[in-house]
Amino acid sequence: MKKQINIGLLGLGTVGTGLAKVLMDNEAILTARVGIPLRLKTIADIDLDSDRGIPLDTFELTEDAHQVVNDPEIDIVVEMIGGEGIAKELILKAIQNGKQVVTANKALLAKHGNPIFKKAQEKGVDLAYEASVGGCMPIIKTLREALVGNRIQTMTGILNGTCNYILSKITDEGLEFAAALKLAKARGYAEADSTLDVEGYDTAHKLAILTSLGYGMAINFDDIYIEGISKITPLDIEFAEQFGYRIKLLAISKGGSEAVEARVHPAMIPFDNLLSNVNGTLNAITVTADVVGKIMLNGHGAGMMPTASSVVADIVDIARNLLRQTSGRVPLMSYQMEQIRPIPVTPIQNISTHYYFRFLVQDRPGVLSTISGILGKYGISLKSVHQKGRKTEGSVPLVMLTHLAREEDVQNALAEIRVLDVVSREPMLIRIEDESDRE
Amino acid sequence: MKKQINIGLLGLGTVGTGLAKVLMDNEAILTARVGIPLRLKTIADIDLDSDRGIPLDTFELTEDAHQVVNDPEIDIVVEMIGGEGIAKELILKAIQNGKQVVTANKALLAKHGNPIFKKAQEKGVDLAYEASVGGCMPIIKTLREALVGNRIQTMTGILNGTCNYILSKITDEGLEFAAALKLAKARGYAEADSTLDVEGYDTAHKLAILTSLGYGMAINFDDIYIEGISKITPLDIEFAEQFGYRIKLLAISKGGSEAVEARVHPAMIPFDNLLSNVNGTLNAITVTADVVGKIMLNGHGAGMMPTASSVVADIVDIARNLLRQTSGRVPLMSYQMEQIRPIPVTPIQNISTHYYFRFLVQDRPGVLSTISGILGKYGISLKSVHQKGRKTEGSVPLVMLTHLAREEDVQNALAEIRVLDVVSREPMLIRIEDESDRE
Repeated sequence: MKKQINIGLLGLGTVGTGLAKVLMDNEAILTARVGIPLRLKTIADIDLDSDRGIPLDTFELTEDAHQVVNDPEIDIVVEMIGGEGIAKELILKAIQNGKQVVTANKALLAKHGNPIFKKAQEKGVDLAYEASVGGCMPIIKTLREALVGNRIQTMTGILNGTCNYILSKITDEGLEFAAALKLAKARGYAEADSTLDVEGYDTAHKLAILTSLGYGMAINFDDIYIEGISKITPLDIEFAEQFGYRIKLLAISKGGSEAVEARVHPAMIPFDNLLSNVNGTLNAITVTADVVGKIMLNGHGAGMMPTASSVVADIVDIARNLLRQTSGRVPLMSYQMEQIRPIPVTPIQNISTHYYFRFLVQDRPGVLSTISGILGKYGISLKSVHQKGRKTEGSVPLVMLTHLAREEDVQNALAEIRVLDVVSREPMLIRIEDESDRE
Repeated sequence: MKKQINIGLLGLGTVGTGLAKVLMDNEAILTARVGIPLRLKTIADIDLDSDRGIPLDTFELTEDAHQVVNDPEIDIVVEMIGGEGIAKELILKAIQNGKQVVTANKALLAKHGNPIFKKAQEKGVDLAYEASVGGCMPIIKTLREALVGNRIQTMTGILNGTCNYILSKITDEGLEFAAALKLAKARGYAEADSTLDVEGYDTAHKLAILTSLGYGMAINFDDIYIEGISKITPLDIEFAEQFGYRIKLLAISKGGSEAVEARVHPAMIPFDNLLSNVNGTLNAITVTADVVGKIMLNGHGAGMMPTASSVVADIVDIARNLLRQTSGRVPLMSYQMEQIRPIPVTPIQNISTHYYFRFLVQDRPGVLSTISGILGKYGISLKSVHQKGRKTEGSVPLVMLTHLAREEDVQNALAEIRVLDVVSREPMLIRIEDESDRE
């Protein structure tokens, strides 16, 4: 039996530093649980001089990540570099060398997961990625293990803390998007280039991973519909509030054996939907499945320590397999590899949901009948119509909520409406996911 | 390698029937995930004639549970009988025979867990019990695996659906406790004898298991303070609402290396505590830990199918170990057995929290100063005082909220106050857990 597990860390950024910290601070508790020590042997990073607030002198340090990947003493390679370039090369090399791998690289797994998983399976090594989705929430473990007896039906998540913080600030303080984003940057909740977060790509990476796992399918990342939050205004949030809704950036996956929905966009959800109370930088995900009903996980979706917690859990999972000289105990993608199949993703045009429209229209007779006439032509039935709010430069907000409608019909109707003379600005469309958790 | 896993089920009650149903209905999906079939070979129950709505003709049926436990073909024994008598005997016999065991028997594990776990460890078999706490929520897996790198600090749970349903009905509809209990029974959410649920014992069983797991300790069940919900009135709930609180039956565990708190009682929690929005029969648990911060799980805590979902997850976990001829991969009690130690449970007298008092007092001068004088004598400092509500037979409700106070001081003060001539009824005391989830 092994006397200790040797770990090699690639990338001493925020999460990498958090990992080193946990392995040092909680060494005793980890040994008490695992039975043998987990030893962080080597750290590779191109910058070994910056102060990360932790002592590095007990570790082997190198600027050459390949040295870690090729070190015969290293059992587990932890990839915390990120991105789709060098990280991919190093992971594949580590697998080739028979090493177990832990990563939090959602972009890589979302786009190139399948061939990497196949390679790991061929080489008989484990590849763990709990930290790639939902930070500290054990959603990967829940899907692969706790819900193993379930047919997953829907997954709905608030998976990006930056967006949730910004939307919470707009909601609570009436800030405009740009001001809320600025605040998020000032508080360290958003990066200098926030595109990946606020335009929904980060959320979509996570949704791709969840969708693959949930239904046992290979997903083409480009099939996911992605819309960010930069167009959301305090006015829409105020209207939503009046109708009993909050606006959240949701990752939505609805499964079936013939087709799945996979989309990321801002959505209105009712106050009594549990996700509506998940505020600030918190993340949450609800899973609906045939046996379990509905289950929710909630916690910090990012940050140094919460994410490091999941990385450590992955390391321990693998260490426990190594101690018993077994690997691949749980299939990498939840289903046995030969059971993974392509399931088509329904194009956004073909989905049906409820809609909120806000038009800025000239305050004159006949406008309402013109717009509702166009909607009617496309079979879009209205649940309610509200003309309220201040008149600005002769225009007033006209808000409409629809019954269930098809996206393609909605887009066709909007194409006609947006070019009307009486419509002053680009119409606002927010989808409504009208699911209550009230019993 | 094994070609299939043979399961023996003891007890075809609600959850047992749910398990048989999942294994039949989701056979294909389970095989696609596990790789080989899980076969329910034998079912033992003293009543094999009642219709459970599922076909039983493909199973071996027996009235003799020992036949299952002694069957050399059975790999996993699933104990769904409950209670501390025959269930304990059968589990110990199964372990003795080298069988893997799955159980949801919280009363048994809360009171006799340690010797049973030791026996399983000695015989090198797994004993899984995810369904014993929180129904479908994977809280055991989360504590044993996902949070393995964390020092657990607090666990706070709504762990009994019957109580949560009753409190929700009192809150939403202003029902008296007795009427809400009657409704719960009519809807099948409470059993004929509801004592175990409404007096908090069921919650305490679950808390005992969580506390052992969280801190790596052996717990004496009798050290847990237990108070149920039968004294809660609509009036208290209304007052709570006015102060920004909801009343929930909480399981509270606060850990340290020198002492832990473990208590079950109704508590007021602020609206922006995530647990306050967990209503109806739903359960939830929050765990605070040093690395992860705070994490919450939420779902159905009971019921045929949600509980069966966890039992299946346990079966699959064990099946995956059997396929690799390993067991004890994750320590039964989260820590290596030799690391489990006794940590004293702080007596309720020594805990400190905030309090809500409601006195029914005669509406005459001097009453307030007498009562506040007694509280002051014991060092209990008041946060606010409210005299409001209708006068009944010359008495009015006097409500007080305290700053942090020690339980023993509070009990001593109440002992003096309850015998005052001006106090018409037994004083009401509800503890306040003033933790907000607002960022």
